[in-house]
Amino acid sequence: MPYVNVRILDDNVTAQQKSDVIAGITDVLVKVLGKNPDSTFVVIDEVPLENWGHKGKSIAELRKQPKA
Amino acid sequence: MPYVNVRILDDNVTAQQKSDVIAGITDVLVKVLGKNPDSTFVVIDEVPLENWGHKGKSIAELRKQPKA
Amino acid sequence: MPYVNVRILDDNVTAQQKSDVIAGITDVLVKVLGKNPDSTFVVIDEVPLENWGHKGKSIAELRKQPKA
Amino acid sequence: MPYVNVRILDDNVTAQQKSDVIAGITDVLVKVLGKNPDSTFVVIDEVPLENWGHKGKSIAELRKQPKA
Amino acid sequence: MPYVNVRILDDNVTAQQKSDVIAGITDVLVKVLGKNPDSTFVVIDEVPLENWGHKGKSIAELRKQPKA
Amino acid sequence: MPYVNVRILDDNVTAQQKSDVIAGITDVLVKVLGKNPDSTFVVIDEVPLENWGHKGKSIAELRKQPKA
Repeated sequence: MPYVNVRILDDNVTAQQKSDVIAGITDVLVKVLGKNPDSTFVVIDEVPLENWGHKGKSIAELRKQPKA
Repeated sequence: MPYVNVRILDDNVTAQQKSDVIAGITDVLVKVLGKNPDSTFVVIDEVPLENWGHKGKSIAELRKQPKA
Repeated sequence: MPYVNVRILDDNVTAQQKSDVIAGITDVLVKVLGKNPDSTFVVIDEVPLENWGHKGKSIAELRKQPKA
Repeated sequence: MPYVNVRILDDNVTAQQKSDVIAGITDVLVKVLGKNPDSTFVVIDEVPLENWGHKGKSIAELRKQPKA
Repeated sequence: MPYVNVRILDDNVTAQQKSDVIAGITDVLVKVLGKNPDSTFVVIDEVPLENWGHKGKSIAELRKQPKA
Repeated sequence: MPYVNVRILDDNVTAQQKSDVIAGITDVLVKVLGKNPDSTFVVIDEVPLENWGHKGKSIAELRKQPKA
């Protein structure tokens, strides 16, 4: 019955990558916890860069900063 | 004070259906738990088919498979 | 494939009430959205009163205040 | 290691306001809990008005109602 | 920056199994999405059997039913 | 109508600290977004150290490692 929510940046993730994330995480739960893939769900949320904050700034802001 | 998050596929759900989900779930919480509708919140998230995984595959992939 | 997360106060909710919330919400999704109960999941989280905030105070604090 | 999820209405929130929410919440966690900003994450979700329910109706419906 | 939330039944999961879930899911995100493990977080929630509903009943109820 | 979920380690956080987190975050949403505190909710989840993973290991494991 596992339900997994994966939150990542909305940053050019391809349909193939999403499929591979779903397959890979399902496989971990089947192998480690003995779960049935039929009752294993994975939902991916892609978050806009200006909506994800780290160190008190949005990722959109952090990417604009010149590197030291 | 209930907060309910409903996650469904982004699959042609109408505004009327969303209203009915909100009204129906609020009604359940009022009747079963005696909650005040004024402090009951329901948030619906519609998830793209390629972002929702089941049985190790996305729903977008599962729908493309021929039926047995 | 709906996944519903119900967050309520940890406030003497009985097993029967939780069953009724699960049954009632599942019924709403089946009737309004035509979902299959076999693929409908409801997870209830009970939150301690000092962990739930409203109006800038925890519910534990709000309940201690004398009523006007 | 805090992870904060802020869910608000999708209601003309500006990039500057989102930055200020991220900065302000990070500051609260640093000051109150002594957390390191480097390991503090804030994710903002903007929810469409017809997907957010209150008092058994969507906010989209509530805003259309004439005021008493 | 991925944040993953794994929700499973509170059903005698060992610390070793939780470590293996954390390691396995982190590995998937590193390999598929090229994420840095330093900014990859996995949070496991263990949900009581009477709080998780499926097919309109709690798992606690479903496990008590005689098999056909 | 904001709903904020704060997830932190279950690591000797006091009731006073939780109150201060609730008050501080509510204040940010009132000042930055002009929200009404009456409709602002903050829910804190305290996560056991062995359930929170970073860099592919649980925090419980990371804290046991000798420092370089």
